[in-house]
Amino acid sequence: MSSSPYPKLIEKLKRSHLLGTVSGLLGWDEQVNLPTDSSDQRAEQMALLAELGHSAAADPEIGALLQELESSRAVLDGDQQTVVRHARRDYDRVTRLPATFVSERARLNSNAYHAWARARAENDFPAFAPFLEKHLEMARREAEYLGWGDRPYDYALDKHDPGTTCDVITTLFSELKAGLIPLVAEILSSPHKSPSGLFRGFPIEEQRRFLREVTERLGFNYRRGRLDVSLHPFCEGAGADVRMTTRFNEDEPLDALFSSIHETGHGLYEQGLPLSDQGTPLGQAIGMAVHESQSRLWENQVSRSRAFWTFFEPRFRAHFPTQTQSLSSDQLYRAINAVEPTLIRVDADEVTYNLHILLRFEIEQSLFRGDVTVRDLPFAWNERSARILGMSPPTDSKGVLQDVHWSGGMFGYFPSYCLGNMIAAQLWYKANADLPGLEADFASGNFGRLLGWLRRAIHSQGRRFDTLGIVRHVTGEDLSPRYLLRYLRERYSPLYLMGDRKNEV
Amino acid sequence: MSSSPYPKLIEKLKRSHLLGTVSGLLGWDEQVNLPTDSSDQRAEQMALLAELGHSAAADPEIGALLQELESSRAVLDGDQQTVVRHARRDYDRVTRLPATFVSERARLNSNAYHAWARARAENDFPAFAPFLEKHLEMARREAEYLGWGDRPYDYALDKHDPGTTCDVITTLFSELKAGLIPLVAEILSSPHKSPSGLFRGFPIEEQRRFLREVTERLGFNYRRGRLDVSLHPFCEGAGADVRMTTRFNEDEPLDALFSSIHETGHGLYEQGLPLSDQGTPLGQAIGMAVHESQSRLWENQVSRSRAFWTFFEPRFRAHFPTQTQSLSSDQLYRAINAVEPTLIRVDADEVTYNLHILLRFEIEQSLFRGDVTVRDLPFAWNERSARILGMSPPTDSKGVLQDVHWSGGMFGYFPSYCLGNMIAAQLWYKANADLPGLEADFASGNFGRLLGWLRRAIHSQGRRFDTLGIVRHVTGEDLSPRYLLRYLRERYSPLYLMGDRKNEV
Repeated sequence: MSSSPYPKLIEKLKRSHLLGTVSGLLGWDEQVNLPTDSSDQRAEQMALLAELGHSAAADPEIGALLQELESSRAVLDGDQQTVVRHARRDYDRVTRLPATFVSERARLNSNAYHAWARARAENDFPAFAPFLEKHLEMARREAEYLGWGDRPYDYALDKHDPGTTCDVITTLFSELKAGLIPLVAEILSSPHKSPSGLFRGFPIEEQRRFLREVTERLGFNYRRGRLDVSLHPFCEGAGADVRMTTRFNEDEPLDALFSSIHETGHGLYEQGLPLSDQGTPLGQAIGMAVHESQSRLWENQVSRSRAFWTFFEPRFRAHFPTQTQSLSSDQLYRAINAVEPTLIRVDADEVTYNLHILLRFEIEQSLFRGDVTVRDLPFAWNERSARILGMSPPTDSKGVLQDVHWSGGMFGYFPSYCLGNMIAAQLWYKANADLPGLEADFASGNFGRLLGWLRRAIHSQGRRFDTLGIVRHVTGEDLSPRYLLRYLRERYSPLYLMGDRKNEV
Repeated sequence: MSSSPYPKLIEKLKRSHLLGTVSGLLGWDEQVNLPTDSSDQRAEQMALLAELGHSAAADPEIGALLQELESSRAVLDGDQQTVVRHARRDYDRVTRLPATFVSERARLNSNAYHAWARARAENDFPAFAPFLEKHLEMARREAEYLGWGDRPYDYALDKHDPGTTCDVITTLFSELKAGLIPLVAEILSSPHKSPSGLFRGFPIEEQRRFLREVTERLGFNYRRGRLDVSLHPFCEGAGADVRMTTRFNEDEPLDALFSSIHETGHGLYEQGLPLSDQGTPLGQAIGMAVHESQSRLWENQVSRSRAFWTFFEPRFRAHFPTQTQSLSSDQLYRAINAVEPTLIRVDADEVTYNLHILLRFEIEQSLFRGDVTVRDLPFAWNERSARILGMSPPTDSKGVLQDVHWSGGMFGYFPSYCLGNMIAAQLWYKANADLPGLEADFASGNFGRLLGWLRRAIHSQGRRFDTLGIVRHVTGEDLSPRYLLRYLRERYSPLYLMGDRKNEV
């Protein structure tokens, strides 16, 4: 065979990706810059780009090239096989969904989003229920179109985190739950309560300067990225131009800081993917869980550590001398690592956050199995919330209606958050084993060795491995929750458990 | 005939326009937000959008619809005829340019912009010259494709200001020059010198607030627009989302103010075009000169007037109480209307500004006639600068490299500035004749009557008239430089000429 179809395929994939980067930029601009009344035009622009993007991704020439490359005559090296395998999967996902199905769901997304926002504002779950039922039905149909009709929830999981299944996640989450529930109980029974009201009047411009200093030192390349402000923090864009956002509150400097570090973790992954392969499976992230592992590792394992604050505490105080005058080092470190159960997932600390995910995973499983109907969801939610979180929401708005995800039909997405936490912890212990003295690096403001390790282990791999495969490849072990449990114990015992005894001395 | 082809044409034109708004936004983002190293991807994005935009504008269905609508069977009202006439002209301009030519130029634009920025920073004209040569060559090729091969500069002029030619402009500019040179000489021989060093330490955040107040009061709708910062101020976007930029210097508050008002004039024109006709010739600006007439009228006739400052001086002082403490009202008004020849066009006052355009018009004519090569441009520039401006730049950065325009291949654009000044003055006298007491409005902060008049006379017309036609339609006279000369005498005589005698009393 001739060698030409492969470069042609790459060209097509890059073109489709490039169109996606334009939509991405418009989406970023919508959240960061768009004048209030200009959303009408933005909706038209996005619809047009979606149409053009679909045409580019479903280009029949891609299908023809794939067929040629999949034939027995094609001689492909390992990387080329990776590209063809993923390109086939992506192409099928784009082309097997009828246009009517796609436009029906786009309409449903828009209607369901507004119905959800109203229902949450008015605490009226029954008003949202029909939209959720419709989404559930469409999720089943989508799985059918793609040949997963008998395992629709597995399809939803695999879509976000290639290679994961409901069975695998159930096993992992059961083990996590068995260790986590007692840990949370121990922490909550500790006489040490999380401090509050310690932070007042941190000027936003100064927060901005401190964030810039921190994120730059962690390794974010501002020559290929930005940090702006939006209502909800996010990270958009691939390596060539990565746009992160945060939000500021004068009385919550740690919120802006840790959300920025979280997005920096995402940004470092994107910036670490090989730029020359951008737009192809060799230059793309593996999935949501691995992405989340990068954001969580920088946010939690690195930036909530003593070593990190050994370096940054003096800098933090230098930026905010009057505001931190009466704040002790111990108070600061405890505020950074406060554990306080809450009903709202996005407000949760890194320990109890996982409980929120276990709850949602159980709910989604039940929905897909048909054990629970949409109408019964509030009851099922509240019952599980009491069992898992130890508290039941006073209203559906603070319970089953709190998250936006289901209004967009995003089933199978929540588990990624918790898988990401597990992966982060497992990578963390491997990195420490490979790189002795890592925490001493942090204490002197050096994060380059860790970043270099992640670049080699994860970022540079593109999509060569799937979610579970990359963990096995890098750590030499299957993914396991015991690293997350070990990390949480090591981080929180000195603060909440052993700390007790120390104080009694 | 059926009535269907016309709405179909409108739909096609709007789709093409919508793609253009996406390119426009990316262009804005490039100047305002783009990380330094991300220009490579932006160049690729712009090239792809140029290609897609070309496909949409050159859609053969538009050609077929136009043919149907141009046939004798079509029954069209006046507006529909306007649309079809312009759509034909635009369609021909697009379809006669090969797609490869269009994407090649889009890439050149992006690369040449960055080369220019570097060359200007490093005073290295030879580094920029190859890009300019390439642009000149592409401009000739473009004229050839459009059937203007024998008159490439006329083509460039007509492209920016429909209906204008090199001959017409030469006549207008000669008459202007004949009146302007003696006026400038008189002003410069006046014992009144322009004040300097009056402004120090005007905080940028406070300048921003004052600008917002001024531009909002002039009528700019911030619910459909923004004001940001870029190296070179500009205004981008159509009525649905208008993005203006300015630049700040703590010691030059008037620079940010007047450049913002200038862009506001552009923005008001765009916001005044009928929104429902956006994307069609009934919702588009006539050309650059008319656009410039709007920005200049607000910047000069309106905002440099005594009446404007009767209202805004107390507000200016309230924003900057300490900085304006020792500044007298007369000093402020003289600073606003200072005449001081400078080498830099964008720093020029409204009197000598026109000399900069006469210089560039001569240079462009010579380049297109082949009298001057790109390599010789610095020499040609410096020689004409001495002759017309009375001074020669010490470096190319302050001479031939000062403007961004040529890095975008924008030949035939500079004359629009001076034509715009002429049109602004001619409209100004007509508006005052139609609206008695206009300056009294300004003195009480009311700019609505003038804006309403411009909306009716100019903005709402879309492209129903050409550059010279709209002037005739609104003022009842052909375009003439005598209104500009009259306005400049009336504004500057009291300050520089008669002011002398008054002071002697």
